[in-house]
Amino acid sequence: MTVELICVGTELLLGNIVNTNAAFLSEQCAMLGLSMYYQSVVGDNPGRLRGLLEAAKERSDIIILSGGLGPTQDDLTKETAALVMGKMLVEDSRAREEIERFMSKRGREITENNWKQAMVPKGCKVLYNPNGTAPGMIMEEGGTYMILLPGPPNELVPMFQEQVYPYLHSLQPEVICSKMVKLCGIGESSAETQILDLIESQQNPTVAPYAKTGEVHLRITAKAESEAAAYALIEPVEEELHKRFGSLIYTDDPKVTLEMAIGELLAKRQLTVTTAESCTGGLLAGRLVNVPGISEHFKEGHITYSNEAKERILGVSHSTLEQYGAVSPQTAEEMAKGGAKAAGADICVAVTGIAGPDGGTEDKPVGLVYISCCCMGKVLTQKNLYTGGRGKIREYSVASALTLLRQAILELF
Amino acid sequence: MTVELICVGTELLLGNIVNTNAAFLSEQCAMLGLSMYYQSVVGDNPGRLRGLLEAAKERSDIIILSGGLGPTQDDLTKETAALVMGKMLVEDSRAREEIERFMSKRGREITENNWKQAMVPKGCKVLYNPNGTAPGMIMEEGGTYMILLPGPPNELVPMFQEQVYPYLHSLQPEVICSKMVKLCGIGESSAETQILDLIESQQNPTVAPYAKTGEVHLRITAKAESEAAAYALIEPVEEELHKRFGSLIYTDDPKVTLEMAIGELLAKRQLTVTTAESCTGGLLAGRLVNVPGISEHFKEGHITYSNEAKERILGVSHSTLEQYGAVSPQTAEEMAKGGAKAAGADICVAVTGIAGPDGGTEDKPVGLVYISCCCMGKVLTQKNLYTGGRGKIREYSVASALTLLRQAILELF
Repeated sequence: MTVELICVGTELLLGNIVNTNAAFLSEQCAMLGLSMYYQSVVGDNPGRLRGLLEAAKERSDIIILSGGLGPTQDDLTKETAALVMGKMLVEDSRAREEIERFMSKRGREITENNWKQAMVPKGCKVLYNPNGTAPGMIMEEGGTYMILLPGPPNELVPMFQEQVYPYLHSLQPEVICSKMVKLCGIGESSAETQILDLIESQQNPTVAPYAKTGEVHLRITAKAESEAAAYALIEPVEEELHKRFGSLIYTDDPKVTLEMAIGELLAKRQLTVTTAESCTGGLLAGRLVNVPGISEHFKEGHITYSNEAKERILGVSHSTLEQYGAVSPQTAEEMAKGGAKAAGADICVAVTGIAGPDGGTEDKPVGLVYISCCCMGKVLTQKNLYTGGRGKIREYSVASALTLLRQAILELF
Repeated sequence: MTVELICVGTELLLGNIVNTNAAFLSEQCAMLGLSMYYQSVVGDNPGRLRGLLEAAKERSDIIILSGGLGPTQDDLTKETAALVMGKMLVEDSRAREEIERFMSKRGREITENNWKQAMVPKGCKVLYNPNGTAPGMIMEEGGTYMILLPGPPNELVPMFQEQVYPYLHSLQPEVICSKMVKLCGIGESSAETQILDLIESQQNPTVAPYAKTGEVHLRITAKAESEAAAYALIEPVEEELHKRFGSLIYTDDPKVTLEMAIGELLAKRQLTVTTAESCTGGLLAGRLVNVPGISEHFKEGHITYSNEAKERILGVSHSTLEQYGAVSPQTAEEMAKGGAKAAGADICVAVTGIAGPDGGTEDKPVGLVYISCCCMGKVLTQKNLYTGGRGKIREYSVASALTLLRQAILELF
C-alpha cells in the first residue's frame, strides 16, 4: 500500500520549526512496510490544502495529515479533509467530555472555540488524545484512508504509536517485523562502513542506519507471512551485527533508551549513581530521571556551575582550579571523585566544558568538554571536542557522559 | 513573489534524516519576503519529480530544489528540471576544473560518472561549490526561476547564503517583516479568544498564534515597500497586544526564549537564582543554563530526588516529609527556602511532583506537581495537575517553574 504525508502549518512554511513529525511518521511507515512517494507541507489555507488532498486521494491509499486541528479560526484541516472525503462534521460526545476533563483538570477555562475540537467527520474512528484537546481521526471512503493527527509532537507521537500503528498494521496483508539494534560510542559513517556489505546485498531483511545524537540505530526489517517467519529472517542478521559491534550495542529493543539500558545495568549490579555537572547544567541528571523507577539508583545530583560551588560542594581543590582551570581533566576527575563522596554514591559522572558561544581560547576552544567517571575510587576520564552551537555541544556532552558511564559500569564492575 | 521548495531524497521519505534544509530555506525565504505556499519531498524518481515540477511551474514564481545532484545513476534532479524548463545540458568547463581540483585536493580518484556533475542547463547561472563536487544552478524561463542546490547541508547552506540569497534579494519589489510577541502563563485558546477581533479583521499585518510548551507565541507579519514601512504597520498591532496581555508578554523578539528573558530580568535586578528539583531532575536548571552568560546569576543547583537528600541538602524537616509527603505544598516551600539558603542565592525555585507512570494515588495522582519560589524570605507556591506521560509532565513542570520564577521576580522585586 502507498502512503503520503501532508503536514499543515504556516510555521513550517516560515521555517519557525523543523519538521520532525515528517521524519517520525516516515520512519514509522517504513517500519509498517508502506511505500511513501510524497510528502508535502502547506499552510493553514483551505483552498491549497483541498487541492493537495484531491491529488493525494488520486495517487495514494493512505493519507496522513498532521497539524491544523487546534481550536483557533485558522485551524481548518479537519473541515477541509471532511469536505474532500464527503463527510459531514458531527459532535462526538466523548471527545467533548474529554476536552472538558482535560481543561478542568488543568484549571483552565473552556472557551467557546474549544468545542470546535469535539466535532468529527461522521462515521470516522476517533483517536482520543490524553495529551491535548485535539482528538485525531481516521476516515475511510472507497478504499482511501485519511488519518488526521494533531501537530504537537508530544501529542502526535503517542497517538500514532498507540492507536494508528496497530490500525495500519491490521490493514497489511503481510507482516512486517523489525528490530532496532542501538549502538553508542561509534559514529554513523564508521558504523555504516562496517556493514556496507550487508546494506548492499540486502533484500529481505533490510538494514537501515539512523544517526541519532551520540548514537547510531540499525533497523533490521523483514516481511513475511507470519511474525515467526519474519523474526526467523531477522535473527541471523541480528547475530551478525552483534558479532561485528559487540559491546557497543546497548539494546535490541526499539523502546529501550540509553538511559534505560544504564538503569538496568545499575539495577543488575545494585549500584547507585550521582552526577556533577557544569556546562550541561542538569541535562545529564535530567536524562537519568527519564527512567521510571530510577530513584533506587539515583538519589541526588549536583549542578556546580561556578568554581566556588565546585570547591564547596564537590571539594575540588582551589589549587587545581587555579593551576589547570575549570575545564581540565584534573578538575573533571576531582569533580567525579568529590561528587561520589558528597552523595555517598558508588559512581559519579562529572562533566565540565566550554559550551560557548563565548569563553573559548586557542588552547581551550568552544566545544572542549571533559567527562570523568569515578567508580569506587577508579576513574575514567575522556576528552571531547564538539562542533556546533551551545545547545548541540551540551546535548552531545550528555550523550558521551551516558556512554562513558555505561562503559565504566561494564569495565569496572 | 511566490516560492516553493522541492526536496529530493529517498532518505527523507524513509525518515532516515530530518529535513533541516526545508526549515533553513523556509526561514531564508521568509526573510526575503517571498511567500511560500508549498513544500514537497519526493524520492529519486524522474516521473514523480517531473509531475511535481510541472505543477510547481504553474503556481510559483520561484522553485527551489535540493538534493539529487550527485554523480550516481539515480541522481536525476538536474536532468528532470532541465527537461521541464526546456533546456539542453552542456558541459561547463569551470565546473569540470573545480571538480578536478576538489577531488585531487582530497586524494580521491575521479570516476567517469563524476563528469556528469559538470553538465549544466544551457544559459543557466552556475553556482560553484567549494564544499563538494555538485555545482548548484539557477535557470530562468518565461518569468519562472528554478534553483537547484546540492542536498548536504554543509554544501547547501553556504551556497544559499553566499550566492542565492543576494540573487533573490535583487528580484524582490516588497519586503516582509515580522515580530514575535511571546506569552507565558496563558493557554492558546484563551489567548486567541482575547484577540479574535484582531485575527478576524486582519489583512496586512496578520496575526497568527503558535502554541508552544507552556507558552503562546503571536507572530505579527507585514508586507511593505520598505522595512521601515513594514514595521510602521506592525507597531500599532504590537501595542494593542501589549495593552491586552500586559505582563504575560515576556518578549517581542523571535530570538529571545523565556529563560533568556528571565536572564535579562536577573541581570537588570542583580539577582542570583538557584534550583531545587525533584521530579524534573535537572531539566529546570538545564533550561536556565541554555542562556549564555547565565553564570553571573546561576551558580549552582540541586537535584534532590530522594527524601534523604531533601533533608540533608535542603534542610527539609523530617516531620514535614512524614506528615505531608514529598509531594506537598509544605515540602515544596521548605525545598525553596532551604535551596536558597544552601546556595546563598536570592531566589530559589523548587519543584516536587509525581511524574509517573507509577507512584500516583487517588489523593495525589500522577501529574500533581508543586512549584515553589522563595525570594528573600517571601514564598509563592503553585499547585499544578498535568496530564500525559512522564516526559510531558516534566517538560510542562519546567515551563511552569520558569513562568512562576518570572512572575516572582516581577512581583517581589
